[in-house]
Amino acid sequence: MTDNTDAKNVIETAHALADAAREVILPHFRSPDLDADNKLSSGFDPVTAADRAAEQVMRDILAVRRPADAIVGEEFGTKEGSSGLSWVIDPIDGTRGFMSGTPTWGVLIAVSDDTGPIYGLIDQPYTGERFEGGLGIARMTGPRGEAALAARSDRPLSEAILFTTFPEVGTNAEMLGFQQVAEKAKLTRYGMDCYAYALVAAGQVDLVIEAGLSNYDIQAPIAVIEAAGGIVTDWQGGPADQGGRVLAAASKQQHAEALEILSRVPLE
Amino acid sequence: MTDNTDAKNVIETAHALADAAREVILPHFRSPDLDADNKLSSGFDPVTAADRAAEQVMRDILAVRRPADAIVGEEFGTKEGSSGLSWVIDPIDGTRGFMSGTPTWGVLIAVSDDTGPIYGLIDQPYTGERFEGGLGIARMTGPRGEAALAARSDRPLSEAILFTTFPEVGTNAEMLGFQQVAEKAKLTRYGMDCYAYALVAAGQVDLVIEAGLSNYDIQAPIAVIEAAGGIVTDWQGGPADQGGRVLAAASKQQHAEALEILSRVPLE
Repeated sequence: MTDNTDAKNVIETAHALADAAREVILPHFRSPDLDADNKLSSGFDPVTAADRAAEQVMRDILAVRRPADAIVGEEFGTKEGSSGLSWVIDPIDGTRGFMSGTPTWGVLIAVSDDTGPIYGLIDQPYTGERFEGGLGIARMTGPRGEAALAARSDRPLSEAILFTTFPEVGTNAEMLGFQQVAEKAKLTRYGMDCYAYALVAAGQVDLVIEAGLSNYDIQAPIAVIEAAGGIVTDWQGGPADQGGRVLAAASKQQHAEALEILSRVPLE
Repeated sequence: MTDNTDAKNVIETAHALADAAREVILPHFRSPDLDADNKLSSGFDPVTAADRAAEQVMRDILAVRRPADAIVGEEFGTKEGSSGLSWVIDPIDGTRGFMSGTPTWGVLIAVSDDTGPIYGLIDQPYTGERFEGGLGIARMTGPRGEAALAARSDRPLSEAILFTTFPEVGTNAEMLGFQQVAEKAKLTRYGMDCYAYALVAAGQVDLVIEAGLSNYDIQAPIAVIEAAGGIVTDWQGGPADQGGRVLAAASKQQHAEALEILSRVPLE
């Protein structure tokens, strides 16, 4: 995107989407009547009324403000576009966290062209935190106002703080690969959903390792973390924008040491 | 405590402590110069300047407002008293979460007599949430104002949401006991530090199971959860106010089913 006017419009539209999603979702968060479907019969993946309503309101705004752009959403699939730009959105990333009342889930909004995500936004409506990166921006707003995003500086894996959401990570091989990295890290923590990626961009933690992701789970984190100086790849060091196995790192040294281990995990 | 005037003074003092702790701690949270000691040479237990400064400011307030009460603090040990009341405080519970930038740690303040904790307060300074219970109170304040605390109603373990902070839980036997409960629960989540206990009181989750706790880790959660209608015991169903192995449950059915499993874990 070389047109500054359009960049400004994209950013303003992303904030309009996030504002609308907040308004729709927050009344459902910690509501006693939270109504969860079981989306996958094979596992626990609750989808709430909030999830669907938030994606719908974001699609309605895009239909007015960005009718030529494509949309890829978790709940309602893909709408083709003609502009070369796609909005890749996950209205509630971290539905299990949402169902548990933890402020670890987020609204994920990414804008991608044929090179991958060029702008991303991670919004946590309950804490009022919004992290965004790309198109010249790397910043957050939250309870303490606005701040620049800058990932932590290079440090060895032995000094790194590592996150993943579930200890099982993914397949057995993926779990074992994760554990090998965790054994070398200074500290391993769990349960943060997409908030962990925001913490990489905010300079708080060094690594997030996950598997089995979808494109809408990772495109916004990629843009935010890269804008903050971090690195996001798959476990072979290639692009992660289509999801799958993801390694997010604050900087080169943490990334290289983790990749050296994860790249040996067999594909299944 | 039968004196209403003293109950009012205790509650006001607890809020004064929490307010002062917030002011001391927040500038250190997500600070790039966070300075962690390694308190235990055998493991990773960072103690920050914030931790010590917050306990000191709380002790200073108690010296003026409640000079006859005892104090039990994580950082500076025990001060004897003559009133029969003890303030049991942990300035930053969840130091690993604090070091990682997650809003899962909290300031824990309990007031105990010879029957155990009679009032407790769990404060999360970054989100601005404060949960309190006891002396006729069961309420929270936060980003959405004030709300009553009420734990979830009875439901089978198969419908329960279970939390613990670390998947390893404690000893190997303790971890295996936890895993047996987790296998029967609907959903297991990690990484929430003392915030998980607040979520039990707030009616969001059903169970928290931990081991290796100290008295200052659990006395405030006990008072808050009991005031909200929940149950906190050790893994034998006895008092948990001295720490060790803790089972916190929203109500009787979840508690009974988890206890049936945990009570078989051998003492070591």
